[in-house]
Amino acid sequence: MSRIKSVVITPIAFRDPPLLNVSGIHEPWALRSIIEVITEDGQYGLSESYGDEQTLSELNKVAPKLEGLDVFQLNTLKAIVDEAVGGEDPDETGLELAPGTNKATTLPRIFAAFEVAFLDLMGKLTGRSVCDLLGGKVRDAVPFSAYLFYKYGEHKSLDDGWVDKWGEVITPEAVVREARQMIDEYGFQSIKLKGGVFEPEEELAAVRALKEAFPDHPLRIDPNGGWTVETTERLMPAMDGLLQYLEDPTPGKAGMGKVHETARMPLATNMCVIGFFDFPEAIRRQSVDVILSDHHYWGGLQATRDLARICETWGLGLSMHSNSHLGISLMAMTHAAAAIDNLTYACDTHYPWQEEEVIVGGKIAFENGSVRVPDAPGLGVELDRESLAVLARNYQECGIRSRNDVKEMQKYDPHWTGKSPRF
Amino acid sequence: MSRIKSVVITPIAFRDPPLLNVSGIHEPWALRSIIEVITEDGQYGLSESYGDEQTLSELNKVAPKLEGLDVFQLNTLKAIVDEAVGGEDPDETGLELAPGTNKATTLPRIFAAFEVAFLDLMGKLTGRSVCDLLGGKVRDAVPFSAYLFYKYGEHKSLDDGWVDKWGEVITPEAVVREARQMIDEYGFQSIKLKGGVFEPEEELAAVRALKEAFPDHPLRIDPNGGWTVETTERLMPAMDGLLQYLEDPTPGKAGMGKVHETARMPLATNMCVIGFFDFPEAIRRQSVDVILSDHHYWGGLQATRDLARICETWGLGLSMHSNSHLGISLMAMTHAAAAIDNLTYACDTHYPWQEEEVIVGGKIAFENGSVRVPDAPGLGVELDRESLAVLARNYQECGIRSRNDVKEMQKYDPHWTGKSPRF
Repeated sequence: MSRIKSVVITPIAFRDPPLLNVSGIHEPWALRSIIEVITEDGQYGLSESYGDEQTLSELNKVAPKLEGLDVFQLNTLKAIVDEAVGGEDPDETGLELAPGTNKATTLPRIFAAFEVAFLDLMGKLTGRSVCDLLGGKVRDAVPFSAYLFYKYGEHKSLDDGWVDKWGEVITPEAVVREARQMIDEYGFQSIKLKGGVFEPEEELAAVRALKEAFPDHPLRIDPNGGWTVETTERLMPAMDGLLQYLEDPTPGKAGMGKVHETARMPLATNMCVIGFFDFPEAIRRQSVDVILSDHHYWGGLQATRDLARICETWGLGLSMHSNSHLGISLMAMTHAAAAIDNLTYACDTHYPWQEEEVIVGGKIAFENGSVRVPDAPGLGVELDRESLAVLARNYQECGIRSRNDVKEMQKYDPHWTGKSPRF
Repeated sequence: MSRIKSVVITPIAFRDPPLLNVSGIHEPWALRSIIEVITEDGQYGLSESYGDEQTLSELNKVAPKLEGLDVFQLNTLKAIVDEAVGGEDPDETGLELAPGTNKATTLPRIFAAFEVAFLDLMGKLTGRSVCDLLGGKVRDAVPFSAYLFYKYGEHKSLDDGWVDKWGEVITPEAVVREARQMIDEYGFQSIKLKGGVFEPEEELAAVRALKEAFPDHPLRIDPNGGWTVETTERLMPAMDGLLQYLEDPTPGKAGMGKVHETARMPLATNMCVIGFFDFPEAIRRQSVDVILSDHHYWGGLQATRDLARICETWGLGLSMHSNSHLGISLMAMTHAAAAIDNLTYACDTHYPWQEEEVIVGGKIAFENGSVRVPDAPGLGVELDRESLAVLARNYQECGIRSRNDVKEMQKYDPHWTGKSPRF
């Protein structure tokens, strides 16, 4: 039976290192929601989404309305989500660090949270992997990139003795060390550095050091819109020949379009094109060359296929964005990426930064930087209920209810505003 | 078991009335291909596509390569089609009457022919309707329009005594009579007139007569690119308030874009946007407001969903085009249209012009101009093997191997060239 009996949404929190970005610094706990969609005969579909208060409130508005729905009815799911949480202004596209908290993405974000669980169930009901439901594998394993961050050695706001295994990373040498540590462990074959933290010249010195240490690894830097148009144009010669793509150097479709006129490398974004509604202007302005997909806010795994079709149609490249996440999201990302022919860049993932898991078997293995696509029905992961209980308790106890990198940074620098572009 | 054991492609021919269009006149027999994809355990998936020699040759290149393929592997199917019939120049977009014979649509056309059969099988294997596999119903029945043609009373090249039930239609009065006959029988609630045949003023007189006779039926006219830009602009005031949309008055994206500047009604096309590759220029030029989908050459039912997403993203309307077809195609069209929220116009169909069928139960019923979406697994239609044998014999005996409305018209008018735009 494919009808839904109930939906359980569990907010969780897990350890997150003090990672630096343009807004500030990661808090000691990252939040997620685990969505279980349970059918009348007791099968369940899994999904993982954002865990901020706003998303949880929206998920909980939709959940009770799903009772009795057949899990194949994705179009009805869309209508239910629309009715329950619609009415947000889709023109209100902002420049938030996390498009998952942007109002413009409310509908696709809440739809996606359930769509993945529905697809997991469809897979279980039909004996098919989610990848098969999306058209089948075009690759057996999905390559991810080493996602490097500048970081502090420890959290100022944590006094329980926990420290991560990565140490302080604020110099080019430390960035190379971090890269080596991550690549040794995961085998990644391309590298992304989260920038927008220090003076651009300093960050480019780190990219050059990476280039020297890993000459065969394609490199990307993502200043998260932290540079002005002028700064980006000034830096263009220094970046020549250095990057696979330059991600969101400057905010907005107009600014990116201006930079694009003189850019010597592809420009990528997960900030100025965060939903289908952004395409008409971005295409008109020729703002970008590469779109970073993210099923969590683009509207799910099928919407990611739609996005891929648009990229193919307009000759844009396709890559994949990530926020802090656990294995359910990693598998959803993997199934989608395995089914999309023109997703030709290694995907981003925060996964190495997390030590905890919520799925049976613990952390998912990487082989040469890639995740193997499972053939098991659905997503191919099951919920570890003991781990879920631990992470749910973390959530109850950690006190964080919405991600706020600015406020966290003010604990280190009381005058911090998070203003961007800063350079 | 979902692996393919064999594929059977049967060319068929069925009676077609002497329908007039910008190229000339329909021949007495219309060609189609019936595709059966058979699994190792003897289940079969059905599809219907073009029956011209070129398409048959391409289908037959792909068919033997499908043995052993799991029917969920649509991405692999795409790669196989690409390898078997790829290499056509996708820039070679022409202005043929039937995009199904345009070289630029070769890959999506051949893919689509198999994709529908694969989806039919997926549905049968999982107990799900094709509509459910596309996201589920947003409507229980799909509305179609009364597709009117100017026509002669009988075929000049036919001497076996067959005549259709529609008589000669070359005056506004006869057009209204034809509309009434069709609406009485099918209940259609909107009307499309195939134009480009007579002087535009004469055809608009027919539209005005329809407006008077059916004041509540939205009206469309489709001159098939038979008018120049100047003619179209001249006629604009006469069409004011008359049309739901104006379909392909003039050829090409540039011409349509020019007309668009002063058009007082939405412009629709199935001629200047016939594949995803046409979008960048069409969007840049603002050539059209409404796209007529057609899974047969857009690349299948999932590609029709992709097309719908593009239309939603760029604020374009979505309707559906048709060539001469039988019930398998009608059901494929119905499942797709039922799953696409923004397909808000009544779909075109040639179905009333055909008397024969190839499916069990004979002709599909219309209710108030709509076709009910079946809940049965797959497409919900089965092959009538006796009828198939009859139609296959027609094909063998009729002698037609590729549609040629120009040559057929030369039997009536030796000086006919089919040149367009003619007015």
